[in-house]
Amino acid sequence: MLPTPKRFTLVAGSGEGNTPLTAFDSALLNAGAGNLNLIKVSSILPPQAQYDPNLSIPPGSIVPTAFGAISSSKPGEIITAAVAVGIPEEDTFGVIMEHSGHYPKDEIEKQIKNMVMEASSFRGIPLREIKIAAAEQKVKSCASVFAGLLLWY
Amino acid sequence: MLPTPKRFTLVAGSGEGNTPLTAFDSALLNAGAGNLNLIKVSSILPPQAQYDPNLSIPPGSIVPTAFGAISSSKPGEIITAAVAVGIPEEDTFGVIMEHSGHYPKDEIEKQIKNMVMEASSFRGIPLREIKIAAAEQKVKSCASVFAGLLLWY
Amino acid sequence: MLPTPKRFTLVAGSGEGNTPLTAFDSALLNAGAGNLNLIKVSSILPPQAQYDPNLSIPPGSIVPTAFGAISSSKPGEIITAAVAVGIPEEDTFGVIMEHSGHYPKDEIEKQIKNMVMEASSFRGIPLREIKIAAAEQKVKSCASVFAGLLLWY
Repeated sequence: MLPTPKRFTLVAGSGEGNTPLTAFDSALLNAGAGNLNLIKVSSILPPQAQYDPNLSIPPGSIVPTAFGAISSSKPGEIITAAVAVGIPEEDTFGVIMEHSGHYPKDEIEKQIKNMVMEASSFRGIPLREIKIAAAEQKVKSCASVFAGLLLWY
Repeated sequence: MLPTPKRFTLVAGSGEGNTPLTAFDSALLNAGAGNLNLIKVSSILPPQAQYDPNLSIPPGSIVPTAFGAISSSKPGEIITAAVAVGIPEEDTFGVIMEHSGHYPKDEIEKQIKNMVMEASSFRGIPLREIKIAAAEQKVKSCASVFAGLLLWY
Repeated sequence: MLPTPKRFTLVAGSGEGNTPLTAFDSALLNAGAGNLNLIKVSSILPPQAQYDPNLSIPPGSIVPTAFGAISSSKPGEIITAAVAVGIPEEDTFGVIMEHSGHYPKDEIEKQIKNMVMEASSFRGIPLREIKIAAAEQKVKSCASVFAGLLLWY
């Protein structure tokens, strides 16, 4: 089997580029995740995974990641992305949610908090804490925002 | 290399939520795949992989999965998702197909069966059997359907 | 952790099918990647990864892949997909870019080259070479094009 991650961190960033994909790349770099091979996962914090805000991952590593991202080429437009995880009170897994859109940052943070609470209540998991990372950008020419929860070992 | 899966199961489910992503989460839970980290694969049943309808996978595991899903916020709308795999007559790999849309369940099952037959004929693989999982939901407020083939070890 | 890939190849292909997904499957087969379980990565060539144009990967393997793809059901339409990687002068990682659209093949190759140069300049990585794979197809009935950089071990 593929090994289950043991540590995690949350990152977010924004960037501009000449194209939507290079803007996305720039946002990844700004978030500190630009030199990794992110693979998208749906979206569970494994039991006992430890929060490590200083996670250092070698370039080119394959990193399971729950993320939200959005790009825009409309100057002046607001774009935001957020990721959040519900840390359970007890020793069990947690639920991760990701979101993106044209909301202000405080609004998307409120929305994603509600999403984590809804998904945790589906499972009857009482939460000790909700961790959030979000990024907001006003588009200059072509921009992207990214928010991700990186799972690592 | 990443280990090649040895077992598989097919699941499908539907659910409602306050947002498209929590509705998707609810559909995953209904399908029995809500507490996993699904990673999307394109879409081959490895040689000798065994069907195991009672596959039990620990929460937070990273699970290679071929899946189709669709969400809708239009009350009354029908949404369906299906996944199917062609089990080869001989001891070789099989092809997995996924599909989603606004078809009735029996219609999407017919379509996905044809897709598996087409993809198997591309490769000249005679089929012994086609396994299908599908879910249909009439949207109440915000709903999602999911059908996936989970690959495991 | 998931093992970091050590070898890579670039492939591209096109195909027709009765549905967008079987057309995509046909394009994968044409590219020589049809019998694999591709998982999408964002998009770094690991340090010291070796180019191997004759990479032979067993069917059903889980293969980290950066790819672009597009399907169309409009007869006569041109569709193209491209992938490119910047090979660094020095012994470090490289950046992979993918792209798709309705451009002629020489046009998308120019665009993706620029994307790789932009992403490499973000990181201050001088390039020794850019490798590109691209596919172009004029749609007959329902077609797909695919270009991918397969990472392997």
